[in-house]
Amino acid sequence: MEITLDCIPCMLKQALESSRMVTNDIDKQEKIMEEALSVLLNFKLYRNSPDLARKIHQIIKNLTGVADSYYEIKRRDLKAANELYPFLKEFMKKQEGNIYWALKTAATGNNIDAAIYQTIDVKNCVERELEKEFSICDLNIFEQKLKTASNILIIGDNTGETVFDKILIENLPEIPVVYGVRSAPILNDTTEKEAYESGLGEVSTIISTGCNAPGTILEDCNEKFIDIFNEADIIISKGQGNFEALSERQGNLFFLLKAKCPMIANKLNVNLNDYVFKYNGD
Amino acid sequence: MEITLDCIPCMLKQALESSRMVTNDIDKQEKIMEEALSVLLNFKLYRNSPDLARKIHQIIKNLTGVADSYYEIKRRDLKAANELYPFLKEFMKKQEGNIYWALKTAATGNNIDAAIYQTIDVKNCVERELEKEFSICDLNIFEQKLKTASNILIIGDNTGETVFDKILIENLPEIPVVYGVRSAPILNDTTEKEAYESGLGEVSTIISTGCNAPGTILEDCNEKFIDIFNEADIIISKGQGNFEALSERQGNLFFLLKAKCPMIANKLNVNLNDYVFKYNGD
Repeated sequence: MEITLDCIPCMLKQALESSRMVTNDIDKQEKIMEEALSVLLNFKLYRNSPDLARKIHQIIKNLTGVADSYYEIKRRDLKAANELYPFLKEFMKKQEGNIYWALKTAATGNNIDAAIYQTIDVKNCVERELEKEFSICDLNIFEQKLKTASNILIIGDNTGETVFDKILIENLPEIPVVYGVRSAPILNDTTEKEAYESGLGEVSTIISTGCNAPGTILEDCNEKFIDIFNEADIIISKGQGNFEALSERQGNLFFLLKAKCPMIANKLNVNLNDYVFKYNGD
Repeated sequence: MEITLDCIPCMLKQALESSRMVTNDIDKQEKIMEEALSVLLNFKLYRNSPDLARKIHQIIKNLTGVADSYYEIKRRDLKAANELYPFLKEFMKKQEGNIYWALKTAATGNNIDAAIYQTIDVKNCVERELEKEFSICDLNIFEQKLKTASNILIIGDNTGETVFDKILIENLPEIPVVYGVRSAPILNDTTEKEAYESGLGEVSTIISTGCNAPGTILEDCNEKFIDIFNEADIIISKGQGNFEALSERQGNLFFLLKAKCPMIANKLNVNLNDYVFKYNGD
């Protein structure tokens, strides 16, 4: 998906918010904003929004020396998500392991960067979100493909969302699942460390994509991941960042996300905050 | 008030929104964004937010040739406000011309750029806003000054808000009132033209401040206005832009506004969306 003009002020705002998470030094925040403005001035040099976001967050890393600015937030979200795990298990038991609701659970996990975990009654909030149905749902195609699939690749997104993805995997047929993650900390995205802390090691093979952007830019991925991607019978791409990086790809590809950004909602032709499970096949 | 780092992404977003109001040409919008980014990179050269906003909107003017990009919006808001005038008159009759509610009416008019007039039931919406009381209200000082004042200066803000200001003036004691306006179109701010169209000519002397920024930067004003400003027994500065430009000034100065921006709310030590009538005396 191409970078829209709306991405520019949004990304600048994100740069400011992120800079404040790692430093109280106003001069440093100002320097970050100045460098971010210079980068954004050349936004056309970047292939997509995750590519540009990575550059912006590199500025923060370079100027503050903090390599994992969302470390604490990831811990908080992971703790909350792990505490929700029994509730999610129970929910799926009530749904008798129905694959629609397993997918919906994984999509609901995509709420995590929308700060769902800052609310007081997390469980109620998740419960309400779980009940909202998909506005695009290519379940039939998915079930069809599932009949003959001998492997599945899931590309992870946020930390904590990972626990919801574990629920999905537990409710899939017994096929080997590879879970792809960012190669290094960026925003609140999961890396191998957080994927293991979410228990994903018990139900899948966790691998790094080789890409450290907040979205899987295939050209930047390592050879091993690209092979897995190309050979996967089913790929489930989680979240907006992966959608932005992979939206032009076709194949056994399903996007599973909540459309939290107006530009992405527009691209998907859904309303803001709709849940989407969309096949991007050829 | 100094420019905060939060102003930068906000102003960039505003530049994009404004550019889309005057042109559908994506290349032109992109050029506007690029020039806006260059200006924002040097944000420290600007004295305050209205100074910076003026520069940004000059880019749009220069690149599109449209000198009054909010022309239609101003007409829409003016029409809606003029239609509300009998209702506001009736409201003040019920309040028996009480000065608190006259000030509150003028402050409620400051909602206009918050798109209150895009809602279906404008009257209900204004009624609800009218009922909200000030969170800072230096009414006592104002009433004290009113006893001896021989003139009042009101510095206008948005078009349409002007009609609410007329209600205020009608409920003031019979003292000459000067109504200061921007020297040229900028955003939805009132110029002489819209002030006359609001009927302010019937109750006050309308003059241009000489300043074309969306906030009264005193050093940029004409001599006549500066004299009136310096000699005014009471000055009522309407809205956020005038507050940003005049917040460091002291004297017979009252700020009358709704704090719609988190930075301004913070500076005023009130909650977002609070109504304020604040004396900035020495």
